[in-house]
Amino acid sequence: MDSKDDKDISRLCIHTITTKPWNIEEAASHFSAAGVKGISVWRDALDGRNIKQTGQLLLDHDLTIVSLCRGGFFAHKDLNKRKLAMDDNRKAIDEAAGLGAPMLVLVCGADPSQSLGDSRKQIQDAVNELIPHASAAKIKLAIEPLHPMYADTRSAINTMKQANDMAGEINSPWVGVAVDVYHVWWDPSLEKEIKRCGESGHLMAFHICDWKLPTTDMLLDRGLMGEGCIPVKQIRSWVEAAGFTGFNEVEIFSTSHWKDNQSEYLQKVIKAYKENS
Amino acid sequence: MDSKDDKDISRLCIHTITTKPWNIEEAASHFSAAGVKGISVWRDALDGRNIKQTGQLLLDHDLTIVSLCRGGFFAHKDLNKRKLAMDDNRKAIDEAAGLGAPMLVLVCGADPSQSLGDSRKQIQDAVNELIPHASAAKIKLAIEPLHPMYADTRSAINTMKQANDMAGEINSPWVGVAVDVYHVWWDPSLEKEIKRCGESGHLMAFHICDWKLPTTDMLLDRGLMGEGCIPVKQIRSWVEAAGFTGFNEVEIFSTSHWKDNQSEYLQKVIKAYKENS
Repeated sequence: MDSKDDKDISRLCIHTITTKPWNIEEAASHFSAAGVKGISVWRDALDGRNIKQTGQLLLDHDLTIVSLCRGGFFAHKDLNKRKLAMDDNRKAIDEAAGLGAPMLVLVCGADPSQSLGDSRKQIQDAVNELIPHASAAKIKLAIEPLHPMYADTRSAINTMKQANDMAGEINSPWVGVAVDVYHVWWDPSLEKEIKRCGESGHLMAFHICDWKLPTTDMLLDRGLMGEGCIPVKQIRSWVEAAGFTGFNEVEIFSTSHWKDNQSEYLQKVIKAYKENS
Repeated sequence: MDSKDDKDISRLCIHTITTKPWNIEEAASHFSAAGVKGISVWRDALDGRNIKQTGQLLLDHDLTIVSLCRGGFFAHKDLNKRKLAMDDNRKAIDEAAGLGAPMLVLVCGADPSQSLGDSRKQIQDAVNELIPHASAAKIKLAIEPLHPMYADTRSAINTMKQANDMAGEINSPWVGVAVDVYHVWWDPSLEKEIKRCGESGHLMAFHICDWKLPTTDMLLDRGLMGEGCIPVKQIRSWVEAAGFTGFNEVEIFSTSHWKDNQSEYLQKVIKAYKENS
């Protein structure tokens, strides 16, 4: 790999779920050998492992641990379920700290048996309630707005404006926003809200992939950058103009790509990152 | 049927596509016999028919013709395709006039080979260009914002705010907005934008159905009101508070319901309308 290539992928991070068939040890080894510098870890990848030792393994592979995915699912009509969600989120914060990740990404949840307004209020209350635990553990909490097609059960936070508004009202250095192109690319106010997110100091993470044509599954048919219609380069330029200097995280759930040879797929991810991000 | 029932469904309109297995003559007969007062006609239902005679048939069944669905698909990178779309939309306006429908609903289109901004500009230009033809034919044009999950190919107009902004800029008595709960239910600014739409005189149509849990197909898995999580009654109350006094149009694409006995399904539609709308 020449120095230009080294530079090209110096801010590339890959989520463990992107190469789901690999366990975290395999992912670390392959990512590192390919020159990838960042990894975001999904909690299921930590199952049955010593979290501190796994974090050390990632560092030993010269990988920056960018985030732990994911906390959230705060919205429940049932109070007991809300309490259980808070327990689980405190546990996730502890896991992030143990792993050595600086940030927990939040998929905030929605409960279709109540109004979106109620779900949104419960989310904001929950994030506020987590701040003391997060600040003590030095873990940032990134609110990720999810595509409106997930407003039924996955997230009542569906636009950058909502996430920005919420982060602004919460007003804590430990709470910000994760921008994922898959969820927000369609939004006519995207450029404006990314700028606002950066100016307010809330822009904490940037996730990339693509929207395939056609999309055959609402959850597990994401594409590699360039396989669809999202203007990833343009959105990245807005994110960088807003002052973001962190990793560009490739987060792809794809039943189709998970069937590929993962070593070949990793090379495709890197190529797509260089050419279409 | 007692008088209370008559009153309950006096503003119920059903789209021909909702009972797709029926041809328009069967739909007219069954709707009328069930006491339904309004019908919106999809263009495919007119294939091979004399449009004026079909319009008269609907009137003979005591049905109000609420709208023709659908024009649009204006956005194309290719200029020739844009011209063909304009021809087709003028034809659709003529069909609406021939049928006796006062309104053409617009699914505005999107071309994933260009930016959403370009698609949006082409849509606005096209609607402006159609106004002389529409006003001469006395046909209203209703811009329907579509769910963001259709921003790839079906519509670059994805929120009520966008539709309101566009109708406001176009500023013609012949151009307004069609509100479909399926597309906009998730939007945190929905109540505000419905109010704005009514105040500006642009609220031209109201479509209802439900968002199923889970939704297994992005296009053809809509539910009857009450089968999902959309607060249809609440949204209807906002629409009525905004001054809308037109029909409540049941527009359901459902591979599943199209397999039902359509006479039984029609009774389910009416029951769902009475109980959950």
